[in-house]
Amino acid sequence: MPGAHLRADLWINETITPWDVYQHGVTRILASKKTAYQEMTILETGAYGKALVLDGKWQSCTGDEFLYHEPLVHPAMLAHGDPRSVLILGGGEGATAREALRWHGVERVVMVDIDEEVVDACRLHLPEMHQGAFEDPRLELVIDDAVKLLERADDRFDVIISDLSDPIEEGPSYPLFTKEHFEKAAGVLSDNGVFVVQAGPLSPVEIKLHARLHNTVKTVFPYLHSYGSHVPTYAAPWGFVMAMGRPIDTHPDPASVDQLLAEKTGGGLRMLDGHALVGLFHLPLNVRRAIEEETLVYTLESPPKFFGQGIADEQRQEVLVAEGGRGD
Amino acid sequence: MPGAHLRADLWINETITPWDVYQHGVTRILASKKTAYQEMTILETGAYGKALVLDGKWQSCTGDEFLYHEPLVHPAMLAHGDPRSVLILGGGEGATAREALRWHGVERVVMVDIDEEVVDACRLHLPEMHQGAFEDPRLELVIDDAVKLLERADDRFDVIISDLSDPIEEGPSYPLFTKEHFEKAAGVLSDNGVFVVQAGPLSPVEIKLHARLHNTVKTVFPYLHSYGSHVPTYAAPWGFVMAMGRPIDTHPDPASVDQLLAEKTGGGLRMLDGHALVGLFHLPLNVRRAIEEETLVYTLESPPKFFGQGIADEQRQEVLVAEGGRGD
Amino acid sequence: MPGAHLRADLWINETITPWDVYQHGVTRILASKKTAYQEMTILETGAYGKALVLDGKWQSCTGDEFLYHEPLVHPAMLAHGDPRSVLILGGGEGATAREALRWHGVERVVMVDIDEEVVDACRLHLPEMHQGAFEDPRLELVIDDAVKLLERADDRFDVIISDLSDPIEEGPSYPLFTKEHFEKAAGVLSDNGVFVVQAGPLSPVEIKLHARLHNTVKTVFPYLHSYGSHVPTYAAPWGFVMAMGRPIDTHPDPASVDQLLAEKTGGGLRMLDGHALVGLFHLPLNVRRAIEEETLVYTLESPPKFFGQGIADEQRQEVLVAEGGRGD
Amino acid sequence: MPGAHLRADLWINETITPWDVYQHGVTRILASKKTAYQEMTILETGAYGKALVLDGKWQSCTGDEFLYHEPLVHPAMLAHGDPRSVLILGGGEGATAREALRWHGVERVVMVDIDEEVVDACRLHLPEMHQGAFEDPRLELVIDDAVKLLERADDRFDVIISDLSDPIEEGPSYPLFTKEHFEKAAGVLSDNGVFVVQAGPLSPVEIKLHARLHNTVKTVFPYLHSYGSHVPTYAAPWGFVMAMGRPIDTHPDPASVDQLLAEKTGGGLRMLDGHALVGLFHLPLNVRRAIEEETLVYTLESPPKFFGQGIADEQRQEVLVAEGGRGD
Repeated sequence: MPGAHLRADLWINETITPWDVYQHGVTRILASKKTAYQEMTILETGAYGKALVLDGKWQSCTGDEFLYHEPLVHPAMLAHGDPRSVLILGGGEGATAREALRWHGVERVVMVDIDEEVVDACRLHLPEMHQGAFEDPRLELVIDDAVKLLERADDRFDVIISDLSDPIEEGPSYPLFTKEHFEKAAGVLSDNGVFVVQAGPLSPVEIKLHARLHNTVKTVFPYLHSYGSHVPTYAAPWGFVMAMGRPIDTHPDPASVDQLLAEKTGGGLRMLDGHALVGLFHLPLNVRRAIEEETLVYTLESPPKFFGQGIADEQRQEVLVAEGGRGD
Repeated sequence: MPGAHLRADLWINETITPWDVYQHGVTRILASKKTAYQEMTILETGAYGKALVLDGKWQSCTGDEFLYHEPLVHPAMLAHGDPRSVLILGGGEGATAREALRWHGVERVVMVDIDEEVVDACRLHLPEMHQGAFEDPRLELVIDDAVKLLERADDRFDVIISDLSDPIEEGPSYPLFTKEHFEKAAGVLSDNGVFVVQAGPLSPVEIKLHARLHNTVKTVFPYLHSYGSHVPTYAAPWGFVMAMGRPIDTHPDPASVDQLLAEKTGGGLRMLDGHALVGLFHLPLNVRRAIEEETLVYTLESPPKFFGQGIADEQRQEVLVAEGGRGD
Repeated sequence: MPGAHLRADLWINETITPWDVYQHGVTRILASKKTAYQEMTILETGAYGKALVLDGKWQSCTGDEFLYHEPLVHPAMLAHGDPRSVLILGGGEGATAREALRWHGVERVVMVDIDEEVVDACRLHLPEMHQGAFEDPRLELVIDDAVKLLERADDRFDVIISDLSDPIEEGPSYPLFTKEHFEKAAGVLSDNGVFVVQAGPLSPVEIKLHARLHNTVKTVFPYLHSYGSHVPTYAAPWGFVMAMGRPIDTHPDPASVDQLLAEKTGGGLRMLDGHALVGLFHLPLNVRRAIEEETLVYTLESPPKFFGQGIADEQRQEVLVAEGGRGD
Repeated sequence: MPGAHLRADLWINETITPWDVYQHGVTRILASKKTAYQEMTILETGAYGKALVLDGKWQSCTGDEFLYHEPLVHPAMLAHGDPRSVLILGGGEGATAREALRWHGVERVVMVDIDEEVVDACRLHLPEMHQGAFEDPRLELVIDDAVKLLERADDRFDVIISDLSDPIEEGPSYPLFTKEHFEKAAGVLSDNGVFVVQAGPLSPVEIKLHARLHNTVKTVFPYLHSYGSHVPTYAAPWGFVMAMGRPIDTHPDPASVDQLLAEKTGGGLRMLDGHALVGLFHLPLNVRRAIEEETLVYTLESPPKFFGQGIADEQRQEVLVAEGGRGD
């Protein structure tokens, strides 16, 4: 008889799709609070360490966050070559700032997050994530709506990193995944600036969000590239879209990347080097095809509604039509 | 208040680790049976299609199996260049045979699986998986223990593919993940033969199994390469080890790969082409490091005991030591 | 470290309230089908035997159904004393008919159930439930809407048993839990007839449904009595309302009950005898108070919407108001 | 398509049996700690209020604890008639003490609990439970092993209440559910003293524990009575055994009970009055039969090992033998 010995009584359930739930056994609750913007929980799980969960969606955890944050930050930094100023939209855990601040040439990192309570809680409870980034004199933390900051910004940034929570229907972030928003971001990029956005799962049943985000970024930037990283607790490979005004070197030479990283950051990355970057940049055929075939563009009038429901519904519908329904 | 609208009442739970459970909503049970060897369930899930589950471990599902079976089969076939004979250890769904049989030059595929009841049920209920492979005159299905077949085989094979279920403690397959077994496999490879084995998850908390399998294959073959593919329902990137007697081209030229595939198979792959193969072959730094640092070799005396418990325990222990235990 | 060894991989989840889920490990699926009226599953669980589940709501299971069906049927039969004709509304499993047919004096049992596919599946897969009741020549099975049957009935019945599935918002049964419906039932009762209705959980957080049903029955019948039985898989004590035109003996003499049962049925009950009947008839103070204080009456215009959401919402709201929300 | 809207992301799972899990959505964690004796969590659930959970077993919650604590305490107090001194074994929440202290004639309540950290946490976080009982000058709180206290006690008590956590295999309480322990308790009872023990679930698949506890108490006391109360969050009706040196009035007159309660406690009970007591005292036939047929006695050499595994195994085995195993 199968079955399983489970270690926990307390569980955090993430609904990956309405049909798929990933459960993690909890060993400790560090914070649990309804902030002005969202439901926040910081907890420790048995296998994957400490995690931040917002409105029921897993943000990142100490056990595998480096597989998300290093690919989010460094490809864009490398594409620029010598970034001085970085703007981070979101990124409450402080781990995105941590990675940007590795670059010795970086003089200024502006991080704008709408939810001060989340930032404060991460600062207190997730030192493994920020590793002191909040104390770095080069960091400017702005508690505000990213949209407003973009509208009033006079400055230009060499790299802009969109590290926002997924555009779920009920959440606050979905307008930030639209053509209009990407145009605003483009408007505050420096001449050689690079924009990168965390851009949803790459799994076959959820690929449309990524494909549409890619397509949306494409309406704003002349050059762009989708890439992905395996983040186990996301229960799907995760996608990113990088964009800029010049052609992107999508087949970088590993040795040159390693040399640039060593020179500019002094080393210390856990997952990303030249060799790994080649891997991130080469997506499977099915993902590339889904991107190529996509025509929809997200706008403020027609923004993303993430959760997979739509897609799962469509898929389910096809199955039902094809098979004539459930039988015994 | 968060929470979720779930679509199912019936759920299949896979214990990824004793602290992590992936649940899939079930829409239909196609078969559920205790065979002579294991507990078998074939079911349909809401988002990921039809799945085979053995002893509680998810084997593959129609929604993302191509992300597993194409990377399992074609890199080895490509490395050989013109395989005529293929031996598949396990592979009850028939999808591994399906991929091998794509190669027009293949004259003979021997598939050995211990559990006839599983093979019969897959044949009946999972046509999307085998797509007629069991009817192909080039396929020889042998119902037997893979060990015994290897011991009595007079033939040599150009490609041997180990597609066995994970080496869980209670399951029948763990002796097939040892040095002794890999030596037997090497003994029935043709001169230019290529061996490939599905080799466990690549997630940071479960990487030791893969690293040790790599290290074990290394004691038998002069050349080997670890690579990985994102399979969402495995809740982790998945690892493979390919090995042979000649150096492996781990930076293949995409165009040449595409040409070889077109010529030999006539096309039709969903995830794998030359570009994707480059991605599969370039693993992140943390995975490569874990492999390099590994010293343990699995033998019949000391075989793998998969589940992550050991690793989770070690990790947890370190956390507890470091933090002084749980507090309120 | 706590945790649990669970035996199953496949689970049926019943949402008792939006905050409480009772999960049962499944060992076998006997039938799973979308009928013309509802989603039906018949399955076998590890501890509680075979169960019928409709639209995600657990109906009854072989492991404890006698704790529901005996209290549903016999108190009304005993109150009548010598029933000849019985009308059962719903009762697809056939277990309610089984209990009614125990009474040797019963000449006719009319059972009306809307869903022929459910009845057929129970007949095939749940012989432990019906125990041949469907073959008894005294049983007339009518596949129809209970409302329609009541409207066209010329006959009178000595006992009417409402064994309908809970009045959930999405389900077909909620109009049958209204004043108008109870009036129709009263209209086809014989002069000394007794009416009994399964009437929801008696747990403190869900008691309003029962209290309101009691109050609704009270508008139709001069005499009525609420009683309850412990049914473990319902995750709550379960309520019934019995009603008639004469005073009900709510403190029956155990010996007389035992004698009447022996004489009329020949014995064989598992949970109910005179002693147990006294227990069923004496509800806790909190339940009696909730009933007394209730003023709402269910009508077709304002029918029940079962699930506990309303109640849980109200309760939650009070908690939030009282405590000022969640804090860490 | 069924399915459910759930309100929570964080869940506490109680394994009722290895095949049955009751999950409660958590809205707040009040305390979570590994004490010297057990894993303790105090949390707030969405529907049932605040709960104490020890080693994964639900102890009691504010939503329905009165359905447990009133039946635990008052029947024994009433049977004595005018108790002056009460000994409580366990009862960390303080709710058992609260009920005993309602009796104006009570001069002294000694409460012995092994786990000071649990008592302190309940005192702080569960004021709804103790309602100031810990401040009552009549209460003596002793932090010690109940066994040791019984061994050294010179006093005699009018009522002894065993409110210990269930005798699970891994827990500390199972020796306290044996003949030897009950003898020690009998040794410190006053001449007209009454002993009562919380005695496990009464559900058909778990009844053996209760039956065996009854049988064990029977070897020590000349008169005893099993009774039960519906406690929804226990997912089963719950059993108690009351025992004394004189015959027990198991058919109490409701009016006399009400008068005695009014006189001695001034009223204020929520579930228990004379009418309800009659209900508690009249168990179903199947429970009474299981008790009558039981022959096993728990001793220190052969103590209870609670969880239902044994019983579930036996039952399952019978099913398998009867039906010839699972098929598709």
